[in-house]
Amino acid sequence: MKPYSMAVKAVILDGSGRCLLLRRSADSRNFPGRWEWPGGKVDPGEDFVSALVRETREETGLEIEITGLAGATTFEMPKVKVVLLSMEARPAGGEVRLSSEHDAWEWVPLKELSHRPQPNAIQSFVLAYAHRKTGAAPPRTRAEV
Amino acid sequence: MKPYSMAVKAVILDGSGRCLLLRRSADSRNFPGRWEWPGGKVDPGEDFVSALVRETREETGLEIEITGLAGATTFEMPKVKVVLLSMEARPAGGEVRLSSEHDAWEWVPLKELSHRPQPNAIQSFVLAYAHRKTGAAPPRTRAEV
Repeated sequence: MKPYSMAVKAVILDGSGRCLLLRRSADSRNFPGRWEWPGGKVDPGEDFVSALVRETREETGLEIEITGLAGATTFEMPKVKVVLLSMEARPAGGEVRLSSEHDAWEWVPLKELSHRPQPNAIQSFVLAYAHRKTGAAPPRTRAEV
Repeated sequence: MKPYSMAVKAVILDGSGRCLLLRRSADSRNFPGRWEWPGGKVDPGEDFVSALVRETREETGLEIEITGLAGATTFEMPKVKVVLLSMEARPAGGEVRLSSEHDAWEWVPLKELSHRPQPNAIQSFVLAYAHRKTGAAPPRTRAEV
């Protein structure tokens, strides 16, 4: 049976209804060209807050302050089942500076998240979040919560 | 600002639409007499799966196999904000044997979860889960997801 692992994502909100999206580099092994919130795997022995702050700093150059829970979903990868925990946050310092993992970034209104292709595994989850927050068009499939 | 910590709960399902609920002992500091899924805090350095298996074993004597995500919610305690991750599981060995933390246990149909008083902080979350799984009466308040 596949083991479960945990990943975290930061929904960094700018106070004007926009969140920071990053575009995965064209040579990414997983989901090239797709837009996503910053984040990544929780390392062994690491708590989810430290992982979220570390991954966000590595991928965006930003410091963040967590402000709440965005939601959780789950999906399968070749070797593991992933539980993805998404936390809302606000910028708390730094300027956006990408790692090689991404090649573009943009503050995107939550109502326009459906215009950015996301990794298939989490698209319905992301759109359901935007729907709850804004009343934007509902997701095409039932999202896991 | 209060730090965030993580707690985990196991929704142990018996294959007949029932889950295992434990009643908190009358002398519990928090939520005495309330019914809950087994689980507890994730210890420093511990991953969420190990914490879930450990807490379930301590509180119920049961071994479990995780089968999916039930959902996530958040609430405030005096010193921390808690992100509560609930995972569905099935029994995988052992007989129910309670710790001193609880004084009763029962396999409760998901449709009847609303008949068991739960900790206020998570009641709407628990009932929203039951609603999604069964079409039972919707929760009285909007649940966080």
